[in-house]
Amino acid sequence: MEKIKPRTLSGFMELLPQKQVYFNSMAKRICDVFSLYGFTALDTPLMEAAEVLLAKGGGETEKQLYLLRKGDADLALRYELTASLAKYVALNFSKLSFPFRRYEIGKVYRGERAQRGRFREFYQADIDIIGDGKLDVLNEAEIPSVIYKCFTSLGLKRFIIRINNRKVLSGFFDIVGVGSIATQLMRAVDKLDKIGREKLSAMLVDELALTNSKADEILSFVAFDGEPFEILEKYKGKNESFDHGVQELAVVSHHLKGFGVPHSHFMIDLSIARGLDYYTGTVYETYMTDFPQTGAICSGGRYDNLAECYTDRNLPGVGLSIGLTRLFSVLDEQNMLNDAILTSPSDVLIIPMTDDISNAISLATEMREVGLRVQIYGESKKFKVKVAYADKLGIPFVVFLGEDELKNGVITVKDMSNGEQTSASAALLISGINEKVKALRNINPIK
Amino acid sequence: MEKIKPRTLSGFMELLPQKQVYFNSMAKRICDVFSLYGFTALDTPLMEAAEVLLAKGGGETEKQLYLLRKGDADLALRYELTASLAKYVALNFSKLSFPFRRYEIGKVYRGERAQRGRFREFYQADIDIIGDGKLDVLNEAEIPSVIYKCFTSLGLKRFIIRINNRKVLSGFFDIVGVGSIATQLMRAVDKLDKIGREKLSAMLVDELALTNSKADEILSFVAFDGEPFEILEKYKGKNESFDHGVQELAVVSHHLKGFGVPHSHFMIDLSIARGLDYYTGTVYETYMTDFPQTGAICSGGRYDNLAECYTDRNLPGVGLSIGLTRLFSVLDEQNMLNDAILTSPSDVLIIPMTDDISNAISLATEMREVGLRVQIYGESKKFKVKVAYADKLGIPFVVFLGEDELKNGVITVKDMSNGEQTSASAALLISGINEKVKALRNINPIK
Repeated sequence: MEKIKPRTLSGFMELLPQKQVYFNSMAKRICDVFSLYGFTALDTPLMEAAEVLLAKGGGETEKQLYLLRKGDADLALRYELTASLAKYVALNFSKLSFPFRRYEIGKVYRGERAQRGRFREFYQADIDIIGDGKLDVLNEAEIPSVIYKCFTSLGLKRFIIRINNRKVLSGFFDIVGVGSIATQLMRAVDKLDKIGREKLSAMLVDELALTNSKADEILSFVAFDGEPFEILEKYKGKNESFDHGVQELAVVSHHLKGFGVPHSHFMIDLSIARGLDYYTGTVYETYMTDFPQTGAICSGGRYDNLAECYTDRNLPGVGLSIGLTRLFSVLDEQNMLNDAILTSPSDVLIIPMTDDISNAISLATEMREVGLRVQIYGESKKFKVKVAYADKLGIPFVVFLGEDELKNGVITVKDMSNGEQTSASAALLISGINEKVKALRNINPIK
Repeated sequence: MEKIKPRTLSGFMELLPQKQVYFNSMAKRICDVFSLYGFTALDTPLMEAAEVLLAKGGGETEKQLYLLRKGDADLALRYELTASLAKYVALNFSKLSFPFRRYEIGKVYRGERAQRGRFREFYQADIDIIGDGKLDVLNEAEIPSVIYKCFTSLGLKRFIIRINNRKVLSGFFDIVGVGSIATQLMRAVDKLDKIGREKLSAMLVDELALTNSKADEILSFVAFDGEPFEILEKYKGKNESFDHGVQELAVVSHHLKGFGVPHSHFMIDLSIARGLDYYTGTVYETYMTDFPQTGAICSGGRYDNLAECYTDRNLPGVGLSIGLTRLFSVLDEQNMLNDAILTSPSDVLIIPMTDDISNAISLATEMREVGLRVQIYGESKKFKVKVAYADKLGIPFVVFLGEDELKNGVITVKDMSNGEQTSASAALLISGINEKVKALRNINPIK
């Protein structure tokens, strides 16, 4: 038979079993945190009518879209989760209760040029809170808490959530008299962290044709390195949107402590703008303290109207998105996956040493009843090969069942972490194994 | 702004939040059972090079395939999980340990004509055990146990696992002298359950040109309604493959009890053949006792060579597949989803009744620390609207935090199941809520 070369498409992450355990553990912990905050799980289709997905338009996006045709239908794979949410909420409006909190962790597709750290198929983990007509700022204060809990639940310690408010920025630009180019300015100041003060200053003067004094004023605002409310105070009372934004920032920072976010893990950063035009209030970006070059590992913000392409209803919301595949690949590259976690497919390998394996089967059934993950090694191989199998897979416990064990009504357990062998009654050893395995299961995937 | 009509493609299941809870609960329980048997999770791409996916060829499949082109690459969405597994094992052979046990629960795509109960995007939940060169029959005996545990873990009670062996059937056809048309015969006898004895008999005579006496002999074999080993005994010693198959069937049935499968839930059915040509040993089909017309809700079997399109290595295996989306839709239609489970996005809704909501926030944080799913209702609405929100979503507990509560250092909890209100210290009430919620979480999704 002629063979086809087995291969996986470039830009598509396909993990070996042990790495998959880390990824799934991360995804599960993030899910669990989302649930703690009352977000309900959705699972929307990966494919939509192209017209529905492209309702919002958008040049760059369209080029990256995977389009396909089936019969006479033009279809497309989703490139993010927000369009699917907007469609879902517009379609099911009367059946949902608002505020509507949902999370979705799912694959999205972008036909980008494949390169290190860029994926064509990748997971996004999104939460959004959608209001009907209105949505209280309390929701904006709660989001950083979800971010904080998500990352600490993975085991991540050194990260910082940067918070700003688009009303503050756009109000400030109005006050300075450069409101007419606010969109371009937002994009420019958002780059401060990447390009530094000098280059940003040059950009404002050369590309956006600002005077030196205006550029200086903007820089001393967005790159202010004292207590942010000091500088905010200076501009108060001059612009309604600005004042409103400052008040929202104050509410958000005030509540963070109550929501359990320590001061060490967030800061107000007046240069954060987020490129996307549709944010209108609080915006968030989260960075790993030791790997700023990685860029934001989580970002989001408040927007005024989720589903205007599909419905006349006003649906303001706030949300965030974690690029899970990218986050995983960075943590893996940075050697931050925690070796101590259990990555084996089973907790126990039972090696029967007699021809009749009925006892091994009953023992496996008994162990599974208490929640242990068990495999019986049933292949005819040398003893050494069987033990090596457990060793290679990192299975923490091996049980031997030979003539002696059966005669004496015991089992022999080898703890693979230290090589110790113990013979005793199954009931006794099962409960010991179970305790040790439970402890192993609680270890964080990230170190 | 011109609106685009929001819609979901036909044949694509998109659930409302409460239904999604049932689906996810089913998927999670199935995952957990797969893990108990030492299967490791894989998550392979949904898209592959068309050439890789079509390596095995196959007319019907090809017509249903979603094909797409990006740049100069011909791509396709997977239509089942087995081809992805075969590619994965061939590609990563040297990094895997055999027997290799994996599960994957993922979406697959088939461009079928959409109709009731047929989906274009649907979940399959697959397990496979792959051997390197050889694979012991013990693995075939273990599979029905996985099936049994899966369905009982959902809460399903009335189902039956039918077991046969392809060697028995093909050996029997050789003995009867009709081995040259074994493939057609397999397909025909597999229909016994659907079309009945008479029609099958007519089919054998009219379509497959058998004599009446041969047709009768085949029918008395495949539709034998006594103890199956009685009739198997009659043909023993005449054909090596037959004898081998009978021995395997005996081993499989012998071990089922040890694996925890009660006699009520499996039977040997000599008419089960499975349409697919690639099965070579034990085959399985599982039916819901009360809804036989639904067809098999889970099926699989032993095959000789998983990845022959990609590699010269001999990789025998045994596996099964649950059509999860279809199973869910049948259970939903048959009204078998269990109303008693908790489908609300949170366990507790906190309704702050004072302007300062700091205490509500701290309480939410405290409750989340112990694993309760909590939402604070922060919108300015009438009291009635807030309680109706909890009611509509089925949130089991509502907490009121007013001036009185704050003054007395207590919280007031309303148990929405009976309307009872209790005021006491937060610590006391949290532990009570937690216990009740834990009990609710253990309820089976299927009744």
